[in-house]
Amino acid sequence: MKYQITFLPQNISTHAPEGTTVFNAANWAGLAIDSTCGGRGTCGKCKVQLRSGANSITEADRKFISDPELAGGWRLSCRAPIHQDSICDVPRLMTSPQAALLGYGRHVAIDPNVAKVFLELAEPTLDDQQSDLARVVAALDKEGYAAHALPDVWRALPKTVRASDWKITCVLVGDELIALEPGDTRAKMYGIALDIGTTTVVCALVNLNNGAVEAVQSALNAQAPFGADVISRVSHTMMNDDGLAVLQSRIIATINGLLDQQLSATGIARENIYEAVAVGNATMLHILLGIDPEPISVAPFIPAILESVTLPTSDLGLRTHPHARLTTLPHLGAYVGADIVAGILATGIARNKDDKFRLFIDVGTNGEIVLGSSARTLSTAAPAGPAFEGAQIKCGMRASDGAIEGVEIRDGEIHLQIIGGVVRPSGICGSGLVDIVAELVKCKLVESSGKLLRPEEARALGISEKLIARLVEENSVRAFSLGNDIVLTQPDIRALQFAKGAIAAGVQVLMQQLGVAANDLHEILLAGSFGSYINPASARTIGLVPWVDDVKKIVAVGNSAGEGAKIALLNFREREAAKRIPEFIEYVELSGRAEFNDIFTDALAFPVQES
Amino acid sequence: MKYQITFLPQNISTHAPEGTTVFNAANWAGLAIDSTCGGRGTCGKCKVQLRSGANSITEADRKFISDPELAGGWRLSCRAPIHQDSICDVPRLMTSPQAALLGYGRHVAIDPNVAKVFLELAEPTLDDQQSDLARVVAALDKEGYAAHALPDVWRALPKTVRASDWKITCVLVGDELIALEPGDTRAKMYGIALDIGTTTVVCALVNLNNGAVEAVQSALNAQAPFGADVISRVSHTMMNDDGLAVLQSRIIATINGLLDQQLSATGIARENIYEAVAVGNATMLHILLGIDPEPISVAPFIPAILESVTLPTSDLGLRTHPHARLTTLPHLGAYVGADIVAGILATGIARNKDDKFRLFIDVGTNGEIVLGSSARTLSTAAPAGPAFEGAQIKCGMRASDGAIEGVEIRDGEIHLQIIGGVVRPSGICGSGLVDIVAELVKCKLVESSGKLLRPEEARALGISEKLIARLVEENSVRAFSLGNDIVLTQPDIRALQFAKGAIAAGVQVLMQQLGVAANDLHEILLAGSFGSYINPASARTIGLVPWVDDVKKIVAVGNSAGEGAKIALLNFREREAAKRIPEFIEYVELSGRAEFNDIFTDALAFPVQES
Repeated sequence: MKYQITFLPQNISTHAPEGTTVFNAANWAGLAIDSTCGGRGTCGKCKVQLRSGANSITEADRKFISDPELAGGWRLSCRAPIHQDSICDVPRLMTSPQAALLGYGRHVAIDPNVAKVFLELAEPTLDDQQSDLARVVAALDKEGYAAHALPDVWRALPKTVRASDWKITCVLVGDELIALEPGDTRAKMYGIALDIGTTTVVCALVNLNNGAVEAVQSALNAQAPFGADVISRVSHTMMNDDGLAVLQSRIIATINGLLDQQLSATGIARENIYEAVAVGNATMLHILLGIDPEPISVAPFIPAILESVTLPTSDLGLRTHPHARLTTLPHLGAYVGADIVAGILATGIARNKDDKFRLFIDVGTNGEIVLGSSARTLSTAAPAGPAFEGAQIKCGMRASDGAIEGVEIRDGEIHLQIIGGVVRPSGICGSGLVDIVAELVKCKLVESSGKLLRPEEARALGISEKLIARLVEENSVRAFSLGNDIVLTQPDIRALQFAKGAIAAGVQVLMQQLGVAANDLHEILLAGSFGSYINPASARTIGLVPWVDDVKKIVAVGNSAGEGAKIALLNFREREAAKRIPEFIEYVELSGRAEFNDIFTDALAFPVQES
Repeated sequence: MKYQITFLPQNISTHAPEGTTVFNAANWAGLAIDSTCGGRGTCGKCKVQLRSGANSITEADRKFISDPELAGGWRLSCRAPIHQDSICDVPRLMTSPQAALLGYGRHVAIDPNVAKVFLELAEPTLDDQQSDLARVVAALDKEGYAAHALPDVWRALPKTVRASDWKITCVLVGDELIALEPGDTRAKMYGIALDIGTTTVVCALVNLNNGAVEAVQSALNAQAPFGADVISRVSHTMMNDDGLAVLQSRIIATINGLLDQQLSATGIARENIYEAVAVGNATMLHILLGIDPEPISVAPFIPAILESVTLPTSDLGLRTHPHARLTTLPHLGAYVGADIVAGILATGIARNKDDKFRLFIDVGTNGEIVLGSSARTLSTAAPAGPAFEGAQIKCGMRASDGAIEGVEIRDGEIHLQIIGGVVRPSGICGSGLVDIVAELVKCKLVESSGKLLRPEEARALGISEKLIARLVEENSVRAFSLGNDIVLTQPDIRALQFAKGAIAAGVQVLMQQLGVAANDLHEILLAGSFGSYINPASARTIGLVPWVDDVKKIVAVGNSAGEGAKIALLNFREREAAKRIPEFIEYVELSGRAEFNDIFTDALAFPVQES
């Protein structure tokens, strides 16, 4: 159930699910209402006037708003959930917020979940015998913050306030007061954004005062020796009593290793890292949290947790401030994980103010697909298999030095783009595979069915002899030679067909369900470490993505998962929005759908090319 | 600011401070409104109709109450704070709640902060892919509970639900889901109530299903070798770098020792102890929590924490369920601690439905005093010194075997009551001291000024020769012999005068402030390990308590601190009420008051006895 809410005087409307606060809906619509407390109803700054749709008066409203104003529909927007179509007058937007350009061209205001509040407290006297805690809590309340102090803060209190002449900096993470620091330490406030891939882990060390990325680095997930994909990782936890503990310690060691390097490179102190936001697929995040992932891997595919969770980093052994918090973004389903939610956040799909349809695909072993507009959005996962990662391809390899990552055929000549600037290629990576097949389809050496022509068949079509000369046969397997012993075989083409067919079929299921045709799509966003390198035209040529009229509609958006994690780290409104994404994106389970196999079979073919 | 709230159809009124919920005010008035969720707005059972005084509609109201009902003033009483005089119709009181008789004749409903909820969950399918967590949360929501699961619960989830055929018992402490247990374990639910005295620690192991005290035991506080009183304990923390850590480990060892004995005596499993409530003076609770108590001991006497706090017992090293929670009751001031708040809870003073004045005194080294009616209540602490504990008294001793604990003079004969039934006494404990002085005052051997008469002075008044024969003098110190080398000296009498004078002066300051005369007092409640053994008539005779006309108004109420802790353990409403006690009991700091010294000087004398 969604309601329309219109914001005046800008006259901007958006659809928001039942129960969304006006505050969050405004952010969704691109209007950041002023607030210092993080939408907890304690600072009173986010007052708006509901011209229609006002209902409940909360205790927080009562604290900040007079009775006549309440009667006039004034409410704290962060405490006002939407239960009907509403019109809202917003008097006070964040005035020139500091912003960072993140994700897919998104301006994100710097408004993190971590806050540092400098307090100059009055010394106690016989006439003012408040406890130290009450004194700090009252001073924070005056600044608009309501926070619960951790036991270690109680312990630090008496000495810290007295040793620092009653001048302290309070560190708040969400509604928790996690630390007291002597003097004014506001300048030092950092967090980390973690993108935990099955293969690669990326850590970005972010300055929470200005959004600057102080360091960003990736490392191989140290779980790699236990298998390349999530299935083999889960198997390891099932086969070994200490399997889960070992895999958990590996990913934590990976993160700590990245963090150690970044701290020593930047000179930033570990104690000034107060928060982490982690994204990744459901299996990776289950293992990170120390939760058995087994039920994710067998029907009916049930994660222990799909929800966003927060816990102390110390619970995991991450070497940050001892009371820092780690928050995960939610998953949409067992196989559409927090990395995709982060991608949705980073690309802004499903929240655009226009009503246009956008398609988001994270291409990989598991192809995650999101399709929709602000009115309705669906997601699913398609089992593409490992072809896009260069596995099970005769000359396939990962996208590393020596891999052919791009191929063009001009006037019968093959032009190769090779990673690392080397001259002699050693294999073909996923994007090269897509390119070469696309080029062969375009010059008709590969038929729509996927069949690689014999020389005589090619000649009958008048194809250049230079290309025909490259058609080879080895042990009765036909292939196309790229020179230097690199070939593309008929089975390689079949493997790619299966991979792209699975994704294309997933896309079609969603398009059918929404009644969307290819040219209704406003944008196709290709994400992930593979998707970002794919040639949009080639993706269209092989039918990995629907045949949109304008190839410019197909855009590579880079590591949208990591970008989304950064956005959630830097802006609490965006994080809250991300937490609610699963509430309004429907997860479609393909393995339960009868029509999927038929669609998949049809999707194996390459689109018939215009000549 | 207090408002009057009247409950219909019972027509019972009470005064409640601004912001008290209707739910809590009803409990205060002795009406336990039905609820299963602990007043968190999630079960919807506590619906009432506010005939006047209704205001805010909350989200929780909206969930459980229809629009016409909302318009008619129906609200969830646990979400409805009082901001004006109100009239409230209560349709549904707890139906025949199981209750226990606790404290000073209080019937306390068994309604603990711990809840065990047995769930039979539907197995997931491809059509029902909720996460395990969402499945449990939804089932709990249906039962009226909204709880946050701890990380260890996430970890236990997948295996526990599957191994127990989706039949589990959820353990909630407050709004935290701390454990999942396979099958139905509701029968096993225990907590401990801790009264942490400077000298003695009492642990009661309580069955939270029926209120039965399965075991209760006391032990010497293992901090005793570091000094008898709070000042010497604080000194130890100041003089030694590890002083606080050592004292903390001592008190925790004391508690763990008591708990171990009780568990082995009862056969109850450690894992079924889910909660602890602790009371004690501010210094003892600071040390228990590992917080520096030094600022409590020097002007302006500032505790780090006066507030009620909750933390995991594991944070302290208490050997309960690993995720059990410990809650402390709040303190009223640096020297009126949570033990007194517990006493206020146990005796029900300051919340009686009548408007009568009651005086509560915990007699000891530090005399804590509470005086008031439901309209207004004051508290203070008077520095009585160690006389009541038998210290600095020539033949003084603790109340142990051989101590004279009661004295009566009949027809010139001395009748002694000796602890342990021994024949030959070894000294005088506090209650014996009060008795012997009271008897000597009554027979006029001691003057109002405190002077012990010489034999010739006594003879002039016609006092029995049997008694005069007991007047002795040693090194020019006059004394009264009790036989067996036990004497009461003139300095002993002076010491008692100082002790009782301090308490009496404290009482007078409060009585003056409230404009209360002795005979306005409806009851005088003597509490604490000493107060409970004192002879009420003797207390009146020496002027320790105001001269009330009827000695039956003076009542010993036993260990009210321990009883209050049990009440807070067994009933969440009572606990919430206890947390708010500091909001409406004013703390009077005697050391800041000019008139105290004059009143104290006057209070040294014994009341002139009627003949």
